[in-house]
Amino acid sequence: MTGQMINSPLTITSLMAFGEKIHADTEIVSVTIDNSLFRYTFADAFRRARRLANALARLGAKFGDCIGTLAWNDHRHFELYFAVNCSGMICHTINPRLFLEQIDYIINHAEDQFVFTDVVFLPLLEKLKDRLSTVKGIIVMTDQAHMPVTSMTNVHCYETLLAAESDLFNWPELNELDASGLCYTSGTTGNPKGVLYNHRNTVLFAMTGISVLGLGKNDAVLPMAPMFHVNAWGIPYCSVVTGSKIVFPGRKMADGETLTSLINEEKITYSAGVPTIWMALLDYLKQSGATVDSLRRVTTGGAACPLSIMEDFDKYGVYTDVGWGMTESTLGSYNSDLDRSVLGEEEFARLRVKAGRVIYGIEMKITDDDNNELPWDGEAFGALKIRGPFVCDGYFKIEHSKAHHADGWFDTGDIATIDSTGMLQITDRRKDIIKSGGEWISSMDLENVAVDHPFVVEAAVIGVHHKKWIERPLLLVIKHPNVELSKEDMLAWFNGKVANWWIPDDCLFVEELPHTGTGKLSKKDLREQYKDYSLST
Amino acid sequence: MTGQMINSPLTITSLMAFGEKIHADTEIVSVTIDNSLFRYTFADAFRRARRLANALARLGAKFGDCIGTLAWNDHRHFELYFAVNCSGMICHTINPRLFLEQIDYIINHAEDQFVFTDVVFLPLLEKLKDRLSTVKGIIVMTDQAHMPVTSMTNVHCYETLLAAESDLFNWPELNELDASGLCYTSGTTGNPKGVLYNHRNTVLFAMTGISVLGLGKNDAVLPMAPMFHVNAWGIPYCSVVTGSKIVFPGRKMADGETLTSLINEEKITYSAGVPTIWMALLDYLKQSGATVDSLRRVTTGGAACPLSIMEDFDKYGVYTDVGWGMTESTLGSYNSDLDRSVLGEEEFARLRVKAGRVIYGIEMKITDDDNNELPWDGEAFGALKIRGPFVCDGYFKIEHSKAHHADGWFDTGDIATIDSTGMLQITDRRKDIIKSGGEWISSMDLENVAVDHPFVVEAAVIGVHHKKWIERPLLLVIKHPNVELSKEDMLAWFNGKVANWWIPDDCLFVEELPHTGTGKLSKKDLREQYKDYSLST
Repeated sequence: MTGQMINSPLTITSLMAFGEKIHADTEIVSVTIDNSLFRYTFADAFRRARRLANALARLGAKFGDCIGTLAWNDHRHFELYFAVNCSGMICHTINPRLFLEQIDYIINHAEDQFVFTDVVFLPLLEKLKDRLSTVKGIIVMTDQAHMPVTSMTNVHCYETLLAAESDLFNWPELNELDASGLCYTSGTTGNPKGVLYNHRNTVLFAMTGISVLGLGKNDAVLPMAPMFHVNAWGIPYCSVVTGSKIVFPGRKMADGETLTSLINEEKITYSAGVPTIWMALLDYLKQSGATVDSLRRVTTGGAACPLSIMEDFDKYGVYTDVGWGMTESTLGSYNSDLDRSVLGEEEFARLRVKAGRVIYGIEMKITDDDNNELPWDGEAFGALKIRGPFVCDGYFKIEHSKAHHADGWFDTGDIATIDSTGMLQITDRRKDIIKSGGEWISSMDLENVAVDHPFVVEAAVIGVHHKKWIERPLLLVIKHPNVELSKEDMLAWFNGKVANWWIPDDCLFVEELPHTGTGKLSKKDLREQYKDYSLST
Repeated sequence: MTGQMINSPLTITSLMAFGEKIHADTEIVSVTIDNSLFRYTFADAFRRARRLANALARLGAKFGDCIGTLAWNDHRHFELYFAVNCSGMICHTINPRLFLEQIDYIINHAEDQFVFTDVVFLPLLEKLKDRLSTVKGIIVMTDQAHMPVTSMTNVHCYETLLAAESDLFNWPELNELDASGLCYTSGTTGNPKGVLYNHRNTVLFAMTGISVLGLGKNDAVLPMAPMFHVNAWGIPYCSVVTGSKIVFPGRKMADGETLTSLINEEKITYSAGVPTIWMALLDYLKQSGATVDSLRRVTTGGAACPLSIMEDFDKYGVYTDVGWGMTESTLGSYNSDLDRSVLGEEEFARLRVKAGRVIYGIEMKITDDDNNELPWDGEAFGALKIRGPFVCDGYFKIEHSKAHHADGWFDTGDIATIDSTGMLQITDRRKDIIKSGGEWISSMDLENVAVDHPFVVEAAVIGVHHKKWIERPLLLVIKHPNVELSKEDMLAWFNGKVANWWIPDDCLFVEELPHTGTGKLSKKDLREQYKDYSLST
């Protein structure tokens, strides 16, 4: 027997309709290239989304089309999210930091029909202009006065298109399983793989996100996670429901001074981004003596967050939440519920650097090499596998993905421990783990210890060949300018912080470390670079 | 094109599985007739739910069966919620306060196959024993030592049944649209009507409830809304996800002293119930000088909450949230996001007594008698209609309900205003509105003013016949014992608080007021009683 409840589909259109009606006056502030502080309301944004939907239809975009975006976090990107999705089209957010050949690959693989681009990324598209066979038009996200000169044909101006359209648009009825978003992961090997979100998982995630992030109408949020990466971790959708003020930082995302003034001028209470951004913010605060009094909480994700960042934030009265997720799952775990006063300082410090507790909507397990489930004791570490309504069940236009098992579990490629309360700790990427005499050493744990040293800017640990142990850890360090730090002092720093046999065999000071298109350390490049390295021990 | 996300059904089983795994050690405390303070954990509760599922199967209960419960809020009722629903059966929670003939009607209408009952309600069932043609067995929710003597056959002891079963049970795969719960509304006219919930709306409501109620792992919740009424407003499901400690108060729900000691001993941070309960609690606190230091927040719903309750709670450091909902919708609106410091005291007081802001998952409109939509200006009042995934689309086994319109909207029977920010104010029940010379007077507004008088215990306002104006308001008041309050003083209390022409034409002091089975004022009975009342003016 089925229940007798109204079976309303969970669509992004319903989020928009709610936000427009209930939070019409909520403010959106946006830093764009043509306006240093553009300001309007939810009512304005969704009225313009209807103009944009009319413009898309007039250009010839159709239900189910992929529409590419190459853009920073700003109000036009926000309008695109809703105009594209609620028209029944797929918003394909392209990471502009990818290599040119990857951008070429994914635009063609997604068969983007139109690409919306910031002025600054137009040169990227110009380089590809003879290769974009499915693209019928490029729309530059600016006004007529700021339109760049271009050699491309079929280029439109965003504001000019909108100015010609009506405020009225009849949004189509959608199925909650209709595709809504497409986001490619930049694997370190092979071509990027696309994750195709749908309306249902986006809405469910927004509902969950609001409670785990603890957002409300009185918050002012600054999403520092890029809108081209997992929909800025879903925060724009959460804000539309809660009516939180949204401040879009534009392209100056890792500039401590800009960030500080945005936070203070716009009374930001909550922000979310990768640790690199928080390091830039904290460095600026320390140097300038500035404070961020309105900021109550930041979410850090995308990479392990060093304890030092959290402790620095504590001094400014900012609580640091940790989240873990992937393009394939949006969020998987979150740690906002640690009670410092009950846990005590030591236990609190031990737990807060973990990746948080599994959230409802995600099932997790860790397995050994034979796919046997390992215990949740905080000690055993194995391959992390997940499933649930937030998790993708395959990659776009790839028949069988190695990561997706027939039993429905997705293999994250991470190595992790989980404790009895569901607290997850990512130990390493599977391919980065160092196998010393058959035992595993976590390169990530060693990196976390290294970057906690006050003289260290960034660190990487890779396995290099060893006669007896097959593989041993090598530490690579960028140190702060103008400090004295010897190899011996650096290695001594590990004493008592990890098992003795985990301590790296050698340490090299380097000027820079290679990164992938999404800003992660490229261990693959490092392993290649040091493949013939001979350990002195 | 459909998205490529795992299409996991939203089932109560998934809530249970999450709670059992992630919050295994979370405590449940339960006041039962056989144990004044029973204490165990989520892990224990769900292990016993599996035993109970085995027992149900052994008794012969089948997928899709309706299983009745006649019980207060305790741990066994909690176990039943999950054992019944996750077995694919329907948990029919019966309100024991209904009239006997109504209980007779609904058990037969639902075709309950088994009825689980508290010891105290067994006499009710005994009176009906020859009328319960579908019921194959009665299970008394106690242990063998406390089993009452009964004339009924086929009566089982809950604990004896569980003791015989295994901890292991394979929960069936369910469809999220499968029916899960059945709750009858006690209309003041006609037979009660059943609302048939499904897994999907229960899970979606839990996800929403967590954020609107602001619950987390560090909370200890005391659900004072009965588990037989709209699943205790969904709070048990929310707690299973958040891992909040749950304290079930048993049958002493309106006893201020018991409530105070439960709050203080169990460090309750959050509770939810009807205003009557809060009045009992506050009266006890005032008399005894006790405090409730751990309590941060209460939700009040089920009836309008007088400002005096909120202001009294303020003095104890407890914030009063207001929610509005119906059996047909669980929750519809909530007011937790009012920022006192921004609004100022006067505006805050004006807004906090409203029914809160529409929540995501509910669409609302107000209409005039010709079904024209009225503006959201906080002034216009009309028939409140709602739709969305939390709203029922018909009553159980009733072909066409007058309340469910062909266009998908459900007519709540309430008269309301909505302001531009979605703040709802229930003005009256449609049938209780007083039509004076064709203009509407809200009986509820007048009652709210009356109960704010310090000498008034309870008040009711009904329309009585008037020669010139057709209908005029008559005020009925129960005053505190040992106070002096004249009719003239009482009526003068309204001056300046409502429009002059709204002030009741007469006031009668009475010893008691009639109530329905769910504890609401029975205006129908009052109108009958005073149908020949002649106004002295």
